Amino acid sequence: DFLAAIEETTPLFGVAEEELGKRLLGGIIHYSPHIDAILKEGQLYINQVRKPGSTPLLSVALHGPPGSGKTALAAKMAIDSDFPFIKFVTPEDMVGFSEMQKVQQLDKIFRDAYKSPLSVIVIDNIELLVDWVPIGPRFSNTVLVALKVLLGKQPPKDRKLIIFATTTARSVLTQLDLFSRFDAEIAVPNVNEQQELAHILQHSGAFSEQDQDRAIREIQDITGSREVGVGIKRILTSIETAKQDSDLAGRFAMVLSRDIAANRSDYS
Amino acid sequence: DFLAAIEETTPLFGVAEEELGKRLLGGIIHYSPHIDAILKEGQLYINQVRKPGSTPLLSVALHGPPGSGKTALAAKMAIDSDFPFIKFVTPEDMVGFSEMQKVQQLDKIFRDAYKSPLSVIVIDNIELLVDWVPIGPRFSNTVLVALKVLLGKQPPKDRKLIIFATTTARSVLTQLDLFSRFDAEIAVPNVNEQQELAHILQHSGAFSEQDQDRAIREIQDITGSREVGVGIKRILTSIETAKQDSDLAGRFAMVLSRDIAANRSDYS
Amino acid sequence: DFLAAIEETTPLFGVAEEELGKRLLGGIIHYSPHIDAILKEGQLYINQVRKPGSTPLLSVALHGPPGSGKTALAAKMAIDSDFPFIKFVTPEDMVGFSEMQKVQQLDKIFRDAYKSPLSVIVIDNIELLVDWVPIGPRFSNTVLVALKVLLGKQPPKDRKLIIFATTTARSVLTQLDLFSRFDAEIAVPNVNEQQELAHILQHSGAFSEQDQDRAIREIQDITGSREVGVGIKRILTSIETAKQDSDLAGRFAMVLSRDIAANRSDYS
Amino acid sequence: DFLAAIEETTPLFGVAEEELGKRLLGGIIHYSPHIDAILKEGQLYINQVRKPGSTPLLSVALHGPPGSGKTALAAKMAIDSDFPFIKFVTPEDMVGFSEMQKVQQLDKIFRDAYKSPLSVIVIDNIELLVDWVPIGPRFSNTVLVALKVLLGKQPPKDRKLIIFATTTARSVLTQLDLFSRFDAEIAVPNVNEQQELAHILQHSGAFSEQDQDRAIREIQDITGSREVGVGIKRILTSIETAKQDSDLAGRFAMVLSRDIAANRSDYS
Amino acid sequence: DFLAAIEETTPLFGVAEEELGKRLLGGIIHYSPHIDAILKEGQLYINQVRKPGSTPLLSVALHGPPGSGKTALAAKMAIDSDFPFIKFVTPEDMVGFSEMQKVQQLDKIFRDAYKSPLSVIVIDNIELLVDWVPIGPRFSNTVLVALKVLLGKQPPKDRKLIIFATTTARSVLTQLDLFSRFDAEIAVPNVNEQQELAHILQHSGAFSEQDQDRAIREIQDITGSREVGVGIKRILTSIETAKQDSDLAGRFAMVLSRDIAANRSDYS
Amino acid sequence: DFLAAIEETTPLFGVAEEELGKRLLGGIIHYSPHIDAILKEGQLYINQVRKPGSTPLLSVALHGPPGSGKTALAAKMAIDSDFPFIKFVTPEDMVGFSEMQKVQQLDKIFRDAYKSPLSVIVIDNIELLVDWVPIGPRFSNTVLVALKVLLGKQPPKDRKLIIFATTTARSVLTQLDLFSRFDAEIAVPNVNEQQELAHILQHSGAFSEQDQDRAIREIQDITGSREVGVGIKRILTSIETAKQDSDLAGRFAMVLSRDIAANRSDYS
Ligand SMILES: Nc1ncnc2c1ncn2[C@@H]1O[C@H](COP(=O)(O)OP(=O)(O)OP(=O)(O)O)[C@@H](O)[C@H]1O
Ligand SMILES: Nc1ncnc2c1ncn2[C@@H]1O[C@H](COP(=O)(O)OP(=O)(O)OP(=O)(O)O)[C@@H](O)[C@H]1O
Ligand SMILES: Nc1ncnc2c1ncn2[C@@H]1O[C@H](COP(=O)(O)OP(=O)(O)OP(=O)(O)O)[C@@H](O)[C@H]1O
Ligand SMILES: Nc1ncnc2c1ncn2[C@@H]1O[C@H](COP(=O)(O)OP(=O)(O)OP(=O)(O)O)[C@@H](O)[C@H]1O
Ligand SMILES: Nc1ncnc2c1ncn2[C@@H]1O[C@H](COP(=O)(O)OP(=O)(O)OP(=O)(O)O)[C@@H](O)[C@H]1O
Ligand SMILES: Nc1ncnc2c1ncn2[C@@H]1O[C@H](COP(=O)(O)OP(=O)(O)OP(=O)(O)O)[C@@H](O)[C@H]1O
Ligand SMILES: [Mg+2]
Ligand SMILES: [Mg+2]
Ligand SMILES: [Mg+2]
Ligand SMILES: [Mg+2]
Ligand SMILES: [Mg+2]
Ligand SMILES: [Mg+2]
Repeated sequence: DFLAAIEETTPLFGVAEEELGKRLLGGIIHYSPHIDAILKEGQLYINQVRKPGSTPLLSVALHGPPGSGKTALAAKMAIDSDFPFIKFVTPEDMVGFSEMQKVQQLDKIFRDAYKSPLSVIVIDNIELLVDWVPIGPRFSNTVLVALKVLLGKQPPKDRKLIIFATTTARSVLTQLDLFSRFDAEIAVPNVNEQQELAHILQHSGAFSEQDQDRAIREIQDITGSREVGVGIKRILTSIETAKQDSDLAGRFAMVLSRDIAANRSDYS
Repeated sequence: DFLAAIEETTPLFGVAEEELGKRLLGGIIHYSPHIDAILKEGQLYINQVRKPGSTPLLSVALHGPPGSGKTALAAKMAIDSDFPFIKFVTPEDMVGFSEMQKVQQLDKIFRDAYKSPLSVIVIDNIELLVDWVPIGPRFSNTVLVALKVLLGKQPPKDRKLIIFATTTARSVLTQLDLFSRFDAEIAVPNVNEQQELAHILQHSGAFSEQDQDRAIREIQDITGSREVGVGIKRILTSIETAKQDSDLAGRFAMVLSRDIAANRSDYS
Repeated sequence: DFLAAIEETTPLFGVAEEELGKRLLGGIIHYSPHIDAILKEGQLYINQVRKPGSTPLLSVALHGPPGSGKTALAAKMAIDSDFPFIKFVTPEDMVGFSEMQKVQQLDKIFRDAYKSPLSVIVIDNIELLVDWVPIGPRFSNTVLVALKVLLGKQPPKDRKLIIFATTTARSVLTQLDLFSRFDAEIAVPNVNEQQELAHILQHSGAFSEQDQDRAIREIQDITGSREVGVGIKRILTSIETAKQDSDLAGRFAMVLSRDIAANRSDYS
Repeated sequence: DFLAAIEETTPLFGVAEEELGKRLLGGIIHYSPHIDAILKEGQLYINQVRKPGSTPLLSVALHGPPGSGKTALAAKMAIDSDFPFIKFVTPEDMVGFSEMQKVQQLDKIFRDAYKSPLSVIVIDNIELLVDWVPIGPRFSNTVLVALKVLLGKQPPKDRKLIIFATTTARSVLTQLDLFSRFDAEIAVPNVNEQQELAHILQHSGAFSEQDQDRAIREIQDITGSREVGVGIKRILTSIETAKQDSDLAGRFAMVLSRDIAANRSDYS
Repeated sequence: DFLAAIEETTPLFGVAEEELGKRLLGGIIHYSPHIDAILKEGQLYINQVRKPGSTPLLSVALHGPPGSGKTALAAKMAIDSDFPFIKFVTPEDMVGFSEMQKVQQLDKIFRDAYKSPLSVIVIDNIELLVDWVPIGPRFSNTVLVALKVLLGKQPPKDRKLIIFATTTARSVLTQLDLFSRFDAEIAVPNVNEQQELAHILQHSGAFSEQDQDRAIREIQDITGSREVGVGIKRILTSIETAKQDSDLAGRFAMVLSRDIAANRSDYS
Repeated sequence: DFLAAIEETTPLFGVAEEELGKRLLGGIIHYSPHIDAILKEGQLYINQVRKPGSTPLLSVALHGPPGSGKTALAAKMAIDSDFPFIKFVTPEDMVGFSEMQKVQQLDKIFRDAYKSPLSVIVIDNIELLVDWVPIGPRFSNTVLVALKVLLGKQPPKDRKLIIFATTTARSVLTQLDLFSRFDAEIAVPNVNEQQELAHILQHSGAFSEQDQDRAIREIQDITGSREVGVGIKRILTSIETAKQDSDLAGRFAMVLSRDIAANRSDYS
């Protein structure tokens, strides 16, 4: 039944390695100094929590456009912490849960975390967890208030907790008065510069220097801008699609340009 | 009871041949090069998923006006994939389900799909699945968020999944922030050109060349436009109705013109 | 209990003769060529469905002002079909049902219909079935979406189904995006011409030619218009009331004029 | 329990004499020809239903300002019908019922009525039965639709039913599209003329001619108008209050004037 | 359990002396002729109900600003009636009740009252009983309609009932169409005149004539007005606070002025 | 189960020392005369309640910007009272509770308090307890009304109760008509003056006089204002973060300035 189902999907202690690993299959490509800066900032917060006598609770929001790499980066930070309790919380595991079941699940995860001296909780896609839908707007009040409360609830004595949350909807969280509950925020940018894109294409091993140049040039021609403006996730998928085509560079330019265009109309 | 009912209507593995076949009874008439292009694009996505090492999840939205052939084309793509697990999901099988039961049913179908190395899920009339009603507007938040989550949930290791969804309500899905969750979209157009209509009439075997010409001319006269603008579904039904009349061409023109007019007032 | 109650009011196969007959107690008076045209159109759709190899599903909406005869005409069409399964669905039999119970009842009726090779379902007052109330507006989303889905759900192989639905609220159904789900619509008009009214009075056998003339003249005087504009139902009731009075024509004119006036203020 | 409670408060057959009598304790004072006309109109409808072969269902709405005598007049009509089944339905007996319980109670009462050849149902304060509250506005959709359906549901063969409903909120019922479901309406007016008031004072036996004159004159002075504009219910209570005072006429004028003023500010 | 809990808090017959006494601990200070007039008016209504043959039901609303003494005055009237059944109904005893439980509790109390020949029911803070919240606005429809119905429901034969209700929210009750259900209203004013305040200070026994004068003068200085405008409840508490201070008059003036200011900003 | 869970987290009598102590780990730094004034005012109210014969119920609202020290100051007041029953109520302990469960929990806590001669209840973050969310706005009506009622409910004879509530949302509580239910309010300010900030830095023992000066100067430079405007909570955390850096003053200035900026955009 339901409770049993919760029980078995919840490793009381230990690290959610498989869950995190799955999110890191695409690796972390250091296509820009931003990436290093982001990872370093994550580490800094983790060290602050780790330090004896310091604040026992810290929450960090990773926000950015779709596919920009928020989940992978949060997973990387969590794994690199080496904390004994790491939990990955995602709406994917709560499909079909009632609002109350979600809240009870969250409460349970936090209670489990409080049992370890050092814990990380990653909350992925926090705007979906509160059932946010722009029409209305509608969302789960119950889950939202529970998150507000849990983000501010100090662990018991000798317990420390750091929370990383990812979201594409920073402004929504601000409206919901959820964003201000975080102690810190990290912005995860799109791939915006042509040389960043070049770095990624090169890293893929599939593009000759010439292909690379042609692809980037064609993208600039199609989109009419030197600015790239797309998440790394889409770039990696587009490389994969292009590889199936005889005209690698052309197909890549076509597919990615379509995504860039869609991004612009969605987010401007 | 309810769970038992779900169980018996859900073939855990295997292909929903009867369900798909029922949607293809009218065949696929190649009345325009668009049709071939659409089917080829579907095949391309299927091949991309099939390829070892590629992205394990792809979702494609087929959208177009009522009766334009979305369901038949999605069914054709699914059958042609030859994937070992093919599931056809339709609101018709969920009449009387609560929101929660719908979500649990969806969740179950996706879990089943994850058990096969290569799976296709066809979700028909996705706007009805979320109980969309324009007044209000109202819709099922619960089902909507579940679909958003499921469309982005990666299958487990060594499992691949392609999703085709059909809808007449692309703009609604966009408002609901559901459309952007799809990796690709395929537009299914109405029959718009007179020569496309001629092709279909000829294919029916019921119209002499003369009947054909007269029918098309009369439609142009009644509707006052060379543009046809109606789904193939209606054309096939109208042929059938016309066949019952002594004045084949006249009756056909009358019936179809009424549909064309209704279409215009509804969708402009 | 409830399920038992459903069971006993639902003849699994067979014809709802009593239900239909009750709606035809007032007979069908052929007061205008419209009536014949309406009945013929109904027959045409029934024949189309009956014909082997043709479309297995057809839905027809009869709409018109209150008391114009929609229910009687739909009942007549259904009876005249001679189909082996005829079901009359009315909100009257669902008083006190929850939304879910209504949907399950509807679903059951359709499932029963699919068991017969040729079926008719008459859905009376479809706007009340969806609990439509103009203030708000409010309605049952659940029942509405179920009707949309059922109106488009093809019967299984070798099964055919024609649906007649009646409503006073065509524009409401259009707003709810329910009206466009019907394959055809039949408008049932008020009695509008004085000679139509004369026909009905004559048919009643209670009015002398002189009474008839006086009544019609007085109505024109009171309402200030040659246009009658009232449903046949009210005319039949008013004749009955007038018969109780010594001044047959005068009382008839008075009573009916009041109804005509009320109609105008309600529907303009 | 609840069902048992319903059972015992529901005389399956028979006349709700006590319930009706309670509403007639103040008698019917014939203070104006209106009263006789109203009662006669009620009788007329009852006779029409009684007549063999006539329409088996008639519904009449009595509407008017608070305390104008609607309930007493409806009770009088019901009792005078001498029909074998008379039922008085009032929200007072449904305090604490859920919407569904109310609907089921209503449905039961109508079903009981259908068992008698001739039945009267009096529905008191129908706007409270649908839980109408002007703020929002709010009301019970479930009860409203049930009433609409029941008001139009024909009794079975050889059964006849007349329904009297009372309300202070004619415009509300119109907005809710409930008012048009009634076959006839009877307006119950306030006591508006000074001579009507004089009639009632005289009938009370407590006022000398002089007291009477003084009271009426003072009311005119205080309210600044010859129009009275108050329900008979309040007049009877005010007489009672005044009787306790040494200054009968003055106290009566004072108390009633206050009510008249309140009425005006409420209803204009 | 819940029912048991209701049972034990509900004295079936008898007088809620403790409940009423608690509300009268501060006594009734006759600081103004208004107080005597109010109490006399209450007595008058009670006598009217008591009188054999008179109206068996009377409801009186006591309304006024916060702390003006409504509850104490209603309690005083109830106790002074010497009726055999007196019940004090307050939201305080219904914390945690569902809407239905509240309604059932109210219904029970009224049924109990109907068992006694002469009953008083005091309903305290009636706007809280209907869960009124200005934002929205929101309130309990269920409780509101129940109160409307119960306020107009005549007791059975030989039973009489008078209802006193208190509220700070007369305009809210008017909007909710609840206020007009009362037969009479009594306005309970703030302490507005300086000499009324002087009376109360003198009655406290703590203020010398000089302190009194200084306090009043300082209040006039601070608030900038000769009008006092505060409830007696606050005056009594402020005296108590001031007594703890060496500077009796100064502290009293300071504390009370703050309240007066808050009152003005809240209620203007 | 749930009831058991409530039971064990609810010390029927006694002092919630651990709960309160946890909130005071950062101590109370007397960085400004305001702090002393606030604590003295709290003591004054406690003494008033303690005094025999005085008002048995007093409620005090502590409001101020996020992190300004409300919770710590309320905890301090509660502990310093030395009352035999002290209860700390926080939404953190009610995650996953339904509205009804929250209300029942609150009701239980108050009932427990009534059993002690002298009780303190601290209600932390009262706006979260009512599930306040600015979008909508939405909140729990049920909890809100329960709080209103409980704040005004006098303890039984010989029982006294003082309530301290904290909130960042004074204006919200005012809109909800909850704020006016408090007998008194205490404003808790941000650290606004540079010399207050200096006091706190000095108290930390980590800053040399020079560091201190530089930090304050840099903050003034970055934020462009002499006004500090941030809660002490953030200052203490920022000191801790800065301590991890070689450039103590610079890092402190940077981190705190960011918070100050965020505060300004949020609250202006
Ligand atoms: N520098 C990088 N940063 C982040 N991800 C990277 C980087 N380099 C490669 N990747 C890969 O890119 C993908 C980023 O996808 P990810 O799901 O983390 O994005 P997201 O922003 O969470 O997307 P969504 O908005 O859909 O949640 C991952 O597969 C990751 O392994
Ligand atoms: N080229 C074609 N493309 C699609 N359908 C075709 C084509 N040729 C013939 N058909 C037939 O036309 C009909 C199309 O109906 P279908 O139900 O697929 O349309 P739809 O767009 O899904 O309609 P709806 O908007 O009602 O869901 C089917 O019977 C199909 O067999
Ligand atoms: N030509 C006719 N068409 C329809 N009804 C007729 C005709 N002649 C006589 N009648 C009688 O008139 C009455 C029409 O009432 P019916 O209930 O069918 O109207 P309706 O439009 O369904 O009313 P409502 O709007 O209330 O549902 C029936 O009693 C029917 O027997
Ligand atoms: N001519 C009359 N018509 C109606 N009632 C009369 C008449 N003469 C005396 N009465 C008495 O007046 C009172 C009318 O009260 P009744 O409750 O019927 O009014 P109402 O309009 O239903 O009030 P409400 O609006 O509160 O429901 C009754 O006691 C009735 O006996
Ligand atoms: N003349 C008076 N009238 C009313 N109360 C008085 C009077 N003299 C003294 N009191 C005392 O003043 C207090 C009035 O408080 P009470 O609770 O009755 O006010 P209220 O208007 O009901 O307040 P709230 O608006 O909070 O419900 C009581 O303690 C009462 O004993
Ligand atoms: N003078 C002071 N006043 C209040 N808190 C102080 C003071 N000096 C030091 N502190 C410490 O500062 C911190 C204040 O945090 P606290 O949680 O009480 O703030 P808050 O206003 O309740 O925050 P929030 O708005 O998040 O509820 C506590 O750790 C407390 O020990
Ligand atoms: Mg992500
Ligand atoms: Mg389709
Ligand atoms: Mg009908
Ligand atoms: Mg009445
Ligand atoms: Mg009070
Ligand atoms: Mg706090």
